[in-house]
Amino acid sequence: MENFTFYSPTKFAFGKDAENECGALVKEFKGTKALLHYGGGSVIKSGLLDRVKKSLDGQGIPYVELGGVQPNPRDGLVYEGIELCRKEGVDFIIGVGGGSAIDSAKAIALGVPYDGDFWDFFCDKAEAKTAIPTATVLTIAAAGSEGSPNSVITKEEGMVKRGAGSDLIRPVFSILNPALTQTLPPYQTACGATDIMAHVFERYITNTKNVECTDRLCEAILITMINETPKALKNPDDYDARANIMWAGMVAHNNIVGVGREHDWNSHGIEHELSGLYDVAHGAGLAVVMPAWMTYVVDQDVMRFAQSAVRVWGCQMDFQNPKKTALEGIAAFKCFLSSIGMPVTFAELGAKEEDIPVLASNHPVGDGKTGGFVALSKRDIENIYRLAL
Amino acid sequence: MENFTFYSPTKFAFGKDAENECGALVKEFKGTKALLHYGGGSVIKSGLLDRVKKSLDGQGIPYVELGGVQPNPRDGLVYEGIELCRKEGVDFIIGVGGGSAIDSAKAIALGVPYDGDFWDFFCDKAEAKTAIPTATVLTIAAAGSEGSPNSVITKEEGMVKRGAGSDLIRPVFSILNPALTQTLPPYQTACGATDIMAHVFERYITNTKNVECTDRLCEAILITMINETPKALKNPDDYDARANIMWAGMVAHNNIVGVGREHDWNSHGIEHELSGLYDVAHGAGLAVVMPAWMTYVVDQDVMRFAQSAVRVWGCQMDFQNPKKTALEGIAAFKCFLSSIGMPVTFAELGAKEEDIPVLASNHPVGDGKTGGFVALSKRDIENIYRLAL
Repeated sequence: MENFTFYSPTKFAFGKDAENECGALVKEFKGTKALLHYGGGSVIKSGLLDRVKKSLDGQGIPYVELGGVQPNPRDGLVYEGIELCRKEGVDFIIGVGGGSAIDSAKAIALGVPYDGDFWDFFCDKAEAKTAIPTATVLTIAAAGSEGSPNSVITKEEGMVKRGAGSDLIRPVFSILNPALTQTLPPYQTACGATDIMAHVFERYITNTKNVECTDRLCEAILITMINETPKALKNPDDYDARANIMWAGMVAHNNIVGVGREHDWNSHGIEHELSGLYDVAHGAGLAVVMPAWMTYVVDQDVMRFAQSAVRVWGCQMDFQNPKKTALEGIAAFKCFLSSIGMPVTFAELGAKEEDIPVLASNHPVGDGKTGGFVALSKRDIENIYRLAL
Repeated sequence: MENFTFYSPTKFAFGKDAENECGALVKEFKGTKALLHYGGGSVIKSGLLDRVKKSLDGQGIPYVELGGVQPNPRDGLVYEGIELCRKEGVDFIIGVGGGSAIDSAKAIALGVPYDGDFWDFFCDKAEAKTAIPTATVLTIAAAGSEGSPNSVITKEEGMVKRGAGSDLIRPVFSILNPALTQTLPPYQTACGATDIMAHVFERYITNTKNVECTDRLCEAILITMINETPKALKNPDDYDARANIMWAGMVAHNNIVGVGREHDWNSHGIEHELSGLYDVAHGAGLAVVMPAWMTYVVDQDVMRFAQSAVRVWGCQMDFQNPKKTALEGIAAFKCFLSSIGMPVTFAELGAKEEDIPVLASNHPVGDGKTGGFVALSKRDIENIYRLAL
């Protein structure tokens, strides 16, 4: 096992009507004026935003608003948010929505106290020294941003998607009310589930040996997703299924299932180019990329994939031919993704074979190699896209 | 699933030589003068205390020392520590050792800023409003106190063992170096493993339905302990086995495996009287109590025990007779405890049948009933002790 630091200081208020605690929590964490940052109409139509405002009003906490966050959130709105916060003296940011609203909120939190361009943090030009506190009211189980130190923003110029990470933007609190996810369309539910499972697999497929505790925790979350996602799709109002998925989504990405080992994250990198170019849902892109990536790298550690096949997918171990078991596990993953309505090929996603060279060129690997489970060159990345055709 | 709050703000520095980060971490968390609080000679003999001191010196952080914490830590030393901290102007407490040193440190942290008797917090006479920050350097994987909001102290008068809980005494940081546990005698290693497994079972055996995510996380930790404990006993220097156990011990008790459901905790309550009266190791007492308790309450939910038998212990499900499977699981647990050198009967523990009425009388249940999975009367508790004969 490798040395690690684990730090997840976020306070999670989880359950029915939890959004009504928002005002009290802002007060507990010393916020005096808040920015409510959100996307489109759904948080307004559902009445969620009004309930959050009422909760802030109840505690006498003033706020300003900035809506309009898009999926794959853009830098333009982040600049707007930074300016608004400075002008209004905001000292607390609340992202209301899914990963996009939260990531945008985190980027604003980094930018407000920073003299330079906030994009510096997203292209490794600067490391954050301070940020204003961020909190979340989550409406989609997917990105795990409610418990993570990460933010992913798309630069409008060239549609380049990049991430930043710092403990400073771990939310001080996150409100998770599973009932809010009951109105999600099936496609979004499934995209979220795929993203959650991908967050686990990026940590699970590792070259580090003998991290039994983390392995078992990864498998616990994967099995939970396999059992609960179909329930939520069959009966969207199944509160318990929604609750298990929503909590699994947090656990999958606050890194409790990733400590003590190398991670991979190549599938996320390869997917970012897809959703950057075609503006498709991140989860849908992952459903296309991840099984292809697994198939491409399976020989690096057949027994690890066989372990996952047996423990997660319930395959029978073929002791004479472990690779057969390993491939059965990957096939079971792909089959599961199809069964929940995800695209698993370029064609199903609406991506084009002729764009593959561009996609591979967009990947920041350049002429070098990525890190992770298997270091990949631009050529490898092209091959993985082709496996996904 | 039930509503819940999950809050585990402790920063964990995990790995080889992690104790050398102690000074920097005290500084990060704004400590200016520390109390080093520990037990007997082992932390001195091993050189650990010197390394911690050197790390504090390196950051220019002054400290005072108070050793002498006993297993089942006593109120007397807590009073002494409170007085010392007040006299010396200590604003940061570092428990160096196992659960006893840490629990004693937490009790001191509660007592220093409190006008009344710190025992008020342990007999529900007062709720803590403030505490000075506590940190830990852990030497035994067992109590989980390094990530928990709890402290258990024994009042010397009458040897009464009671607990207090508050987020104020969650450690601000905890240093976990698995190599420090390599010198533990096998009996202590096994006692610790039993305590860890008990922390999970107290959360796993619940009447709350449909908390799949928490169930699976519980099972992950139990399986980890079943696989790793024998490795650590066979080869005490197996760093990875020690690391998996040490991390599992934290995960088992910071409540990530307990959210969204009712807990039990009757076995801990029943055990506290055993270790209170006989001054035996808490883990050894639990090894005697827990299988007896399970046998006594199995009919409350046969399928839950069968689930544990199949998923955790690898039993074959008897679909015609689930209770047979449930009992096989309990037998497997008892057999496992014996295999790692734990006592599983009163006789093996050195407890006496004739003391059973006294033990049951000491339990704070009085003429009422406990809560939990099955509410127990004094009579039930006597019956459980008898099942453990």
